[in-house]
Amino acid sequence: MRIRSIRQIRVLFGLRLNRYQFWKEQEADMRSKYTIGIDFGTESGRALLVDVSDGREVATSVFTYPHGVIDRTLPESGVSLEPDWALQDPDDYIQVLKNVVPAVLAQGGVDSADVIGIGVDFTACTMLPTLADGTPLSYLPAYRDRPHAWTKLWKHHASQPEADRINQLAEERGEPWLELYGGKTSSEWFFAKALQILNEDPEIYHKAERLIEAGDWLVWQLTGRETRNSCMAGYKALWQKGEGFPAPDFFAALHPEMADIVQTRMSEEILPIGHKAGELTPQAAAWMGLKPGIAVAAPVIDAHCTVPSAQATRPGIMVMIMGTSVCHLVVGEERVTAPGMSGVVEDGIVPGYFGYEAGQGATGDIFAWFVKNGVPPEYHQAARERGISLHQLLEEEAAKQRPGEHGLLALDWWNGNRSTLVDAELSGLILGLTLATTAPDIYRALIESTAFGTREIIETLTENGVPVHRIVTAGGMPEKNRLLMQIYADVTNRELGMVRSGQGAALGAAMHGAVAAGVDAGGYADIFTASERMGGVKETVYRPIPENVAVYDRLYADYKRLYDYFGRGENDVMKRLRSLRREVLAG
Amino acid sequence: MRIRSIRQIRVLFGLRLNRYQFWKEQEADMRSKYTIGIDFGTESGRALLVDVSDGREVATSVFTYPHGVIDRTLPESGVSLEPDWALQDPDDYIQVLKNVVPAVLAQGGVDSADVIGIGVDFTACTMLPTLADGTPLSYLPAYRDRPHAWTKLWKHHASQPEADRINQLAEERGEPWLELYGGKTSSEWFFAKALQILNEDPEIYHKAERLIEAGDWLVWQLTGRETRNSCMAGYKALWQKGEGFPAPDFFAALHPEMADIVQTRMSEEILPIGHKAGELTPQAAAWMGLKPGIAVAAPVIDAHCTVPSAQATRPGIMVMIMGTSVCHLVVGEERVTAPGMSGVVEDGIVPGYFGYEAGQGATGDIFAWFVKNGVPPEYHQAARERGISLHQLLEEEAAKQRPGEHGLLALDWWNGNRSTLVDAELSGLILGLTLATTAPDIYRALIESTAFGTREIIETLTENGVPVHRIVTAGGMPEKNRLLMQIYADVTNRELGMVRSGQGAALGAAMHGAVAAGVDAGGYADIFTASERMGGVKETVYRPIPENVAVYDRLYADYKRLYDYFGRGENDVMKRLRSLRREVLAG
Repeated sequence: MRIRSIRQIRVLFGLRLNRYQFWKEQEADMRSKYTIGIDFGTESGRALLVDVSDGREVATSVFTYPHGVIDRTLPESGVSLEPDWALQDPDDYIQVLKNVVPAVLAQGGVDSADVIGIGVDFTACTMLPTLADGTPLSYLPAYRDRPHAWTKLWKHHASQPEADRINQLAEERGEPWLELYGGKTSSEWFFAKALQILNEDPEIYHKAERLIEAGDWLVWQLTGRETRNSCMAGYKALWQKGEGFPAPDFFAALHPEMADIVQTRMSEEILPIGHKAGELTPQAAAWMGLKPGIAVAAPVIDAHCTVPSAQATRPGIMVMIMGTSVCHLVVGEERVTAPGMSGVVEDGIVPGYFGYEAGQGATGDIFAWFVKNGVPPEYHQAARERGISLHQLLEEEAAKQRPGEHGLLALDWWNGNRSTLVDAELSGLILGLTLATTAPDIYRALIESTAFGTREIIETLTENGVPVHRIVTAGGMPEKNRLLMQIYADVTNRELGMVRSGQGAALGAAMHGAVAAGVDAGGYADIFTASERMGGVKETVYRPIPENVAVYDRLYADYKRLYDYFGRGENDVMKRLRSLRREVLAG
Repeated sequence: MRIRSIRQIRVLFGLRLNRYQFWKEQEADMRSKYTIGIDFGTESGRALLVDVSDGREVATSVFTYPHGVIDRTLPESGVSLEPDWALQDPDDYIQVLKNVVPAVLAQGGVDSADVIGIGVDFTACTMLPTLADGTPLSYLPAYRDRPHAWTKLWKHHASQPEADRINQLAEERGEPWLELYGGKTSSEWFFAKALQILNEDPEIYHKAERLIEAGDWLVWQLTGRETRNSCMAGYKALWQKGEGFPAPDFFAALHPEMADIVQTRMSEEILPIGHKAGELTPQAAAWMGLKPGIAVAAPVIDAHCTVPSAQATRPGIMVMIMGTSVCHLVVGEERVTAPGMSGVVEDGIVPGYFGYEAGQGATGDIFAWFVKNGVPPEYHQAARERGISLHQLLEEEAAKQRPGEHGLLALDWWNGNRSTLVDAELSGLILGLTLATTAPDIYRALIESTAFGTREIIETLTENGVPVHRIVTAGGMPEKNRLLMQIYADVTNRELGMVRSGQGAALGAAMHGAVAAGVDAGGYADIFTASERMGGVKETVYRPIPENVAVYDRLYADYKRLYDYFGRGENDVMKRLRSLRREVLAG
């Protein structure tokens, strides 16, 4: 007979009950403690069960939203949606809970008694109208066929006219918060979406007793308590610590009936990032097979949750989440403004620091565009024959070159410029083309152009007092493309590491869960310690190669010159082309 | 018995000899007269047998040069050539004569007695060193393994250092002829090639009793008489009517041993274009199965020979020969200078007018580059399935768009700029790219960019006093691509016709042969009459569509702005990229 646990020893030796009790407590203390990070993405939700002591990822499970992204017709009623709409069904989020949490517990063989906390990360701004008790308006049969009753997903872009109006008004009024968001707010953000509801379906707006981020709504469902978090409020709803939201007269100027939106439909109590939002209700615990009463952390935006996973909770380390687009996150000691940053928010990434966010509108999207639209059959065939992806083949071919060899230079604005220029009307450019230019040449030039775009962001932040000494990457791309990593290291002249976890956001959420649980329950006192213990980077580090850095310095000088020429009004040809195109298409 | 000729009638009716003689002469007068145009291209030579009365093309035959373009090793000796060399074996030209002329006579069923003249067009500057009797040095066993003894083909580009030196010196000395060649001479031209011989193999230079255009050499072989023609001397050897070649002190400054090059190795007697160079020798007549003594016209550059075929012998009509690159030709009343024209030469295209030549370094080459390097498999497959070329498919797709719809703008400098900027260091550019840009979008933008390049040339000429009212195109491309023709009509806001003949150069050569033969022999008094009678354009005319013209005017304004910005020193990024590339490749 194998002795499997202290319990068995106890049984074997017939220990007395009072001593048994003592042992049992000791045993529970000695057993590992776990938290669960739940990551709500665009198409699915994921749970990650993590060992609190060292961040070991014990089990993970994904559940695809039954309704996915609703962008054509509403479920059941079949009501058609306009272009640029993107909705979700909040019940899908609840289905995630019911599926993925039991799955990871089972898969990890973990006793629910050892799960001490839950953290949640969520796409943002993904927001919905609810009743005062949290019931989504889209649950009510009377409103189920009304598009504005549903959850607006982050990438719902139909609020562009509202965003334009907000920007115009803020500029006219000289709103002080505007420069904290790079001088421009996005159609993806909270008040643009709220104003669109009011403009287009005022009945829904008036019926809505709450307008709330889906992350906060989900935590409300877990804890039974309505809260709001500083990360989403800060980056998506113009909230600043100590200053609050824009003033009622701003909202009144936007729309008379919107003056009291914060007071009537939101909340001015904002939990600092990762703070404990409440404790798990018996009902939510039953959904998931967990113990009621465990800590639930305030939700965090998915990207921002990656920062503690990358051990980048202190100034000087930038986290770069690379996918179809790139999100740059770094914390600083002071609040400064830098052109084109998406936002600076105190307690926005970790408590006690100012969190800076910037981004590039397209990176992986540009490479994917090229691979789909610009590569001749011979490369497709060679990749097929070798059983590798076309990306891999092009990377291999492009990696044979030295910097400067292809003679090309590109501006990475295929999806406009979302960083220091904040201009969606800009477009991509390639120059240096000759009759000898090949597809791998262009592929490499496109990678370089996105690296130059990142360098521009880093230099702008650094010049404005937010230093960046080192970069840690996350997302699918860094893992797959070594050439890309080396180019980024060479172009930025900075070491490039990779977050250890393949689930950086969910792991970060689990850390916030461990902090919410606190030391007494077996968690941590703060996110810095949690990050130290549970986060980490891979061993592989990409270091700048001095001779490449020298060449890229020269190329970057030319990139900058084109950047300024086409981006800052010297030659607005890109805007003229866009407007001519619209004119022609409109007939 | 079928009566086949007047001769049979005569025999049948037993006509008397003196009356027979009379009949025979009458019969000969009544029978059609023919000339033969012989077109020497890069890879092959072609004969075209033409009815003098109406330009009807009776027969044609092509013969590929046995040695083709010699650009790797010399025949027999196997001596290796450096990069950018391109040689030919002049005996290949003689083989052409022996093959294609008998072939067209046989094919056309034409009596050699009815062939009254020969015209020759040739690539230029294609030049060779010979003895005083015309024997090419490459024929001499002692020099057969010496690359510089061979004929240098027009596209021999290894004389670039010599061309640079000529340009630099001419500029320093303020040579008055320089501006007649757009301020820059080419490595393809005569004196760059001659100087390269002197620099690299002085023995060959000194042994050469003649340095001569291959066209003039070929005519020498036909007539037994050494002559030079105004077209090649004017466009390729800096000769100007009444002014002659550059002065000996210029050549002395270039190289002391080159001072007397014109006097010792060339000739200052230059035949006006298409003038009779001599009469066919018995030997040459025997090669070809023709009658000795018939007229042979002075040779003409191939492109320039197309002008009379297109009936563009008077001012205001531009001939545009479209292939891998484009050559623009138009005549004017006065000698003016315009930036970037390749040359202005009196009697250079037709006698009595100043011939203007301009060009674009790549057009068809750009589309071919794109089709080879930038189009994804789905289009290749669709073209295959429909049994059409990829060009056709892309043209079809692109033709569905309206001007301005794709939102793109390109600079057509894939092979540098050979027109108003005369700068080989410039390179191609595309801007306006988005994630929605497709291959047909780019294809259309590339066509448009070459049309903008042509408009720039037309406007520059017009502004400088050489009006262009109408365009006649020649070459393979116009026939194949209707979209291209319409775009050129819309962009230039001018009617676009097409030369009727598919062999515009050879037909023009045949016209010059008819003029050399003269009226008494059944030919013409001048090229204008010959062109009127023998040339012609197709019925199809592409007319500008006003609403397209309006859009292209806007796009052209932006093209011009980029043209000036990148081409005139405001931003030399293209040159920096080229020089960085050279630096990197040199290690």
